[in-house]
Amino acid sequence: MALAACVEFIHTATLLHDDVVDESALRRGQASANALFGNKPSVLVGDFLFARAFQLMVEDGSLRVLAILSEAAATIAEGEVLQLVTQNDTTTTEAQYLQVVEGKTAALFAAATRVGAVVAERPAVEEAALDAYGRNLGIAFQLVDDALDYSAEQERLGKTVGDDFREGKITLPVLLAFARGSEAERGFWRRTLEGREQGEADLAEALGLMQRHGALRDTVERARAYGDAALAALAHFPDGAERRALAGIVEFCIARAR
Amino acid sequence: MALAACVEFIHTATLLHDDVVDESALRRGQASANALFGNKPSVLVGDFLFARAFQLMVEDGSLRVLAILSEAAATIAEGEVLQLVTQNDTTTTEAQYLQVVEGKTAALFAAATRVGAVVAERPAVEEAALDAYGRNLGIAFQLVDDALDYSAEQERLGKTVGDDFREGKITLPVLLAFARGSEAERGFWRRTLEGREQGEADLAEALGLMQRHGALRDTVERARAYGDAALAALAHFPDGAERRALAGIVEFCIARAR
Repeated sequence: MALAACVEFIHTATLLHDDVVDESALRRGQASANALFGNKPSVLVGDFLFARAFQLMVEDGSLRVLAILSEAAATIAEGEVLQLVTQNDTTTTEAQYLQVVEGKTAALFAAATRVGAVVAERPAVEEAALDAYGRNLGIAFQLVDDALDYSAEQERLGKTVGDDFREGKITLPVLLAFARGSEAERGFWRRTLEGREQGEADLAEALGLMQRHGALRDTVERARAYGDAALAALAHFPDGAERRALAGIVEFCIARAR
Repeated sequence: MALAACVEFIHTATLLHDDVVDESALRRGQASANALFGNKPSVLVGDFLFARAFQLMVEDGSLRVLAILSEAAATIAEGEVLQLVTQNDTTTTEAQYLQVVEGKTAALFAAATRVGAVVAERPAVEEAALDAYGRNLGIAFQLVDDALDYSAEQERLGKTVGDDFREGKITLPVLLAFARGSEAERGFWRRTLEGREQGEADLAEALGLMQRHGALRDTVERARAYGDAALAALAHFPDGAERRALAGIVEFCIARAR
């Protein structure tokens, strides 16, 4: 339980810092911490949670757990930096995009699920299976998130539609629409995402182009494939309530995009 | 050496985040990272350095070292938050101010010096002596820093004079001048530091009041007392090059205020 709290603290710390970095006004449908209290408390309380997570891990006393979670924390920060580097760059490749997603999202999922096997002293093959489950679930989750950012469903979840577009984030829906678009359409993406010149009608135009090229549908399809890989990793474990619970998380994750 | 690098990484991470939180344009006489690259990379690279420091500590493998440095990291963040809470509040007490200083500055000095005794497997009394040395040195350092912020000497060190004043930071020079001032003078401090109403002549006025009440001189005097406590802690160790080096740091620290 204490280690689960550590993962949650690390996650909350990254969300606090993310909202400062992205200047987000909303988080889970409510005013974000930086909107309510300003950037300073958000940065510092994030630092505190991060440090407190490490204190709890040290109290737990497992160097292997500390190694897994401190590596995940470093990988998250690297993923966020890589995301900054690819931002506003339409020449970003799918491979680079997936590297960002693996870093900023999937690494913590994988660490959290792997640690379960470590503290239960399970064999290496189960540790690897839980790592694969978490990593694929994390990628599926992020792909759905990136599709939702361009979907009306987003508003129901308490987020604003088009945040990624306004910030010029290069996500899979954009990469697919860009790759499948005409030269004129690519000009549109370059102007709006690289040049950051956006008019009132541009978000609607972006949604139209994604619709035309099936970019959102195919992003969710890709998420489903990663979800299937997560489910396949669970085959290493006997059927039971725990396995069904883990499988249910995958279904829930994909169903957000319905 | 690896653990010394950890302390330096944690320190650098806090400086990166500090400069974002304080919106500082200068660090050690050069443009600060946030001024050069923006807040986003500063927050994220700080997070990365912090995580990397923990990875290095885990590789080192001592849970005692991890406990000391993760506690210091949490204490630093608490000290910074406490500083935010006392900012712009002239009813701050000297005890609260010292608590901020112990948290944001002295905790890492104490952890760094204590770890030296831990890795050398020295007895508890030497560990405590090195902790006391570091903690008192850290407080002395910060007191001198707070005095320098109102001194022309500051410019020679590549910092701007009056940053603390402009931000409404309640430091010892302010507390002494406020406590020793007339009711009219307290009105000046309330207007400029609490109300944040500052005109062009106000920094000069603040310096004049500090001069009149010996606030800077007495802050440095107080620093000297903490420096002496740091030197006294070194008495637990035999004379030699190492002890002389540690004593020299205290002298250097106080001499900055000359």
